[in-house]
Amino acid sequence: MKLTQDRIQKYENDGMLFIPNYLSKLEINSVNEAIFQLPDNTPGLVMEKDCQTIRALHGVHAHSKILQDLIRHPLLLEPARQILGDSVYLYQFKINMKAAFTGDLWPWHQDYAFWYEEDGMPEPRTISIGIFLDEVNQFNGPLYYILGSHKEGLIDFNTNGSREDAGWEANVSADLKYCLDNKTITRLVQKGSLTAPTGSAGSVFFFHGNIAHASVPNISPYPRRLLIITYNSINNIPRSDRKRPEFLVGKNYTPLEPIVKNNVLLQQI
Amino acid sequence: MKLTQDRIQKYENDGMLFIPNYLSKLEINSVNEAIFQLPDNTPGLVMEKDCQTIRALHGVHAHSKILQDLIRHPLLLEPARQILGDSVYLYQFKINMKAAFTGDLWPWHQDYAFWYEEDGMPEPRTISIGIFLDEVNQFNGPLYYILGSHKEGLIDFNTNGSREDAGWEANVSADLKYCLDNKTITRLVQKGSLTAPTGSAGSVFFFHGNIAHASVPNISPYPRRLLIITYNSINNIPRSDRKRPEFLVGKNYTPLEPIVKNNVLLQQI
Repeated sequence: MKLTQDRIQKYENDGMLFIPNYLSKLEINSVNEAIFQLPDNTPGLVMEKDCQTIRALHGVHAHSKILQDLIRHPLLLEPARQILGDSVYLYQFKINMKAAFTGDLWPWHQDYAFWYEEDGMPEPRTISIGIFLDEVNQFNGPLYYILGSHKEGLIDFNTNGSREDAGWEANVSADLKYCLDNKTITRLVQKGSLTAPTGSAGSVFFFHGNIAHASVPNISPYPRRLLIITYNSINNIPRSDRKRPEFLVGKNYTPLEPIVKNNVLLQQI
Repeated sequence: MKLTQDRIQKYENDGMLFIPNYLSKLEINSVNEAIFQLPDNTPGLVMEKDCQTIRALHGVHAHSKILQDLIRHPLLLEPARQILGDSVYLYQFKINMKAAFTGDLWPWHQDYAFWYEEDGMPEPRTISIGIFLDEVNQFNGPLYYILGSHKEGLIDFNTNGSREDAGWEANVSADLKYCLDNKTITRLVQKGSLTAPTGSAGSVFFFHGNIAHASVPNISPYPRRLLIITYNSINNIPRSDRKRPEFLVGKNYTPLEPIVKNNVLLQQI
């Protein structure tokens, strides 16, 4: 269940590693079914600006055995431990819905800016894994990554003035609190290169907390749901993770262990 | 200078024909230089919502000999006359700027909806030719076309309520006056397919007035300027083209004749 050295090297160089068709169709079906069965109005639910479309769900693994199992899936957890060289716990679990026609943009940002500023995470010793729940194509708002940008460390970011005193929603809305400015993005793109992974449901990408990324609105008829699990090293506990609600910031520091056989999810591999 | 029968057939089927590297780099350089030398604040200038970035220029050929010559370029005018089977005059000349980082979206629409509603154009006997003035890639807001959608004719469109009494700017802003609804787009995409031509500066696409198209914002550091010339058949003069200003609606019905040799633009082919 570990990544090859070539893949590890690619992750280290690019700050991102995309693997098409990594999870099986059956597994993705189980996950999609679990999401479908979630209760309405979970606390970490965020709406788009139109106040009608769900933008994202946070911490919904709390309401689903299948989603909890997914976090401990060896194909996800083993590479996370391998890359970080440490035991890990669950820091964040979210589903970005990017709904057909209405899913809005994400401005250019580094994830670690939020974790550092809001939670006092000492270092970017995390790994995030994005799982395509739908086919991602060039039309339904794929994520754009600037390869190599993670090597810059945490870049001076702009704090969106109007969001200074906003609640946790400002960390997950289209009007984002900590953004990278145009000059920085131009410089990063000149040094690195832009990429936008596309592929079938079940494809995944591993990404660094400091890689710069963004996405455009989805104006197509195709939904583009993306599940993102962020693992943090157990030796990198945030200093002030009590500020934000549990559905945004995991507070159970117990090291995760991979699930073993006879598990519903794994039976479907 | 005429299109092959295969290309004509493709245009008829798809409502769109893309030809990479159709005009030469030297020609595009001349056109870009001519745009650079345009006077500030031409009357058809439209700003983005930020009130700082130029969204589009309309009718600027009036201020440039090179741009006037471009309209009569045999590589553009001959295929237009060939496809329409008629003499043509200039109906519209515009440059959509889609600036790096700030160029905003265009909602799903058919161009002919505007020409029919605003100008009383009897039939969609037009041909529009889009010319890439910059390289278009998947990141800088390429146009999305639904192939075959022109065969539907003029589709019932939504009139954007807030734009009912707006001036001509509502025909060219991101908050567009006549849009296609999500149900229609879903149906059209199920029947046809989405395409987004990308390529070097100098690539062109010929497109039908009834093909459904849209584009997302440009969040990349790459500008994506597109010059669009629309020719109309001289037997399809709009009934009420006095309503909109001349920089949006050409009122010189004299049939266009291709420029011949010894022309600055053609010398650069």
